[in-house]
Amino acid sequence: MLPRMLDVRTKILKDNDRVARSLRERFDAAGVFVVSLVSSPGAGKTAFLQKTLTVLRERYRVAALVGDLATENDANRLAQSGAPVRQIVTGTVCHLEAAMVDTALGDWRLEELDILFIENVGNLVCPSSYDLGEHLRLVLLSTTEGADKPLKYPTIFNTADLAVITKSDLAVAVEFDRPAALAAIESVRPGMTVLETSAKSADGLAPWLAILEERLAERESGVA
Amino acid sequence: MLPRMLDVRTKILKDNDRVARSLRERFDAAGVFVVSLVSSPGAGKTAFLQKTLTVLRERYRVAALVGDLATENDANRLAQSGAPVRQIVTGTVCHLEAAMVDTALGDWRLEELDILFIENVGNLVCPSSYDLGEHLRLVLLSTTEGADKPLKYPTIFNTADLAVITKSDLAVAVEFDRPAALAAIESVRPGMTVLETSAKSADGLAPWLAILEERLAERESGVA
Repeated sequence: MLPRMLDVRTKILKDNDRVARSLRERFDAAGVFVVSLVSSPGAGKTAFLQKTLTVLRERYRVAALVGDLATENDANRLAQSGAPVRQIVTGTVCHLEAAMVDTALGDWRLEELDILFIENVGNLVCPSSYDLGEHLRLVLLSTTEGADKPLKYPTIFNTADLAVITKSDLAVAVEFDRPAALAAIESVRPGMTVLETSAKSADGLAPWLAILEERLAERESGVA
Repeated sequence: MLPRMLDVRTKILKDNDRVARSLRERFDAAGVFVVSLVSSPGAGKTAFLQKTLTVLRERYRVAALVGDLATENDANRLAQSGAPVRQIVTGTVCHLEAAMVDTALGDWRLEELDILFIENVGNLVCPSSYDLGEHLRLVLLSTTEGADKPLKYPTIFNTADLAVITKSDLAVAVEFDRPAALAAIESVRPGMTVLETSAKSADGLAPWLAILEERLAERESGVA
């Protein structure tokens, strides 16, 4: 008699939480701020991160891990920023787990980094419950996806700290219902900060970097 | 000691296959042709299906089931076609299962239908391994998602019968790399038929309906 799926899942999540806690302790001890990104496939995580890395690299020591079921495509794209990047290939697994992050870090000296980015597998469901030891989790939503996605996938919005609307340059072409999207985010995660960005035009990149630098400063002054 | 996740998953898939087989027998006995749709969230399954239902309704008895973790939004949109539609709310489950389809069919008299559509939860991973008893599985890929999605999510393309590129009206605006997308599909599923469509302009709808009617005709003549 096999136990219920739920029991196995609970055990896996508990194990993950334990590894995530130990990762977060390592990150804190090394003084590295860790930001993860989740979204559906094709929402623009890699483009957003590539822009972010390119700008930040001039002032901070940054690196990135990126997860996908297959291919090294995203690591190659992100590496164009000049930052150190490693791909995590998950095979059939639709999310990153803390242990995968732990393994991928390998010989990287965390104390030599200021900010580490972790781009999760493109999926609006699976990554929700897996803590990766990050300090800030971004959920991205592209204007091309439709404004009701937060209502359809509430958990992923609920477990994130900041929402980023991407591809704002396409908003008019796709008749993006901005008020509906903002209302949907507000209804599943009241008070959540929402940024509107375009990796193509770089619109909205400055407010995002300002938030990130504020978090870094708070951290250094011991407020956070 | 808990068994490995894989064991539990294997058992669940076996159970699903059994229910799917019995569903397919029911569909065949009733003479209803069943088409399922999978894609990432926001690729345009609902828009594509709404157009399809609206046109087909004039000549065929059609109905649809649609899955989402939360909301009845898609059922409401599809119902605008005038066809009977039922929403399946999966809660935290990132795919439809044959048993969910079985339950949702409820009192519908299958012998009074020609075509039943099943729109899966928006996800490029989870639905891959779940047979729903369908005769034809479509995988949709929008021009806004990026051309390498088939390489990153090979299993979902491998388990589908027909690929549909959606939002072709946005191809130029998003600099869609059409040759790369076609090559990616060909590499994970050699010989797969690919349709290019826009629910907005209705481009590509006629070839899709022609394929569907051909399949229906084959079926009636006992070829398929």
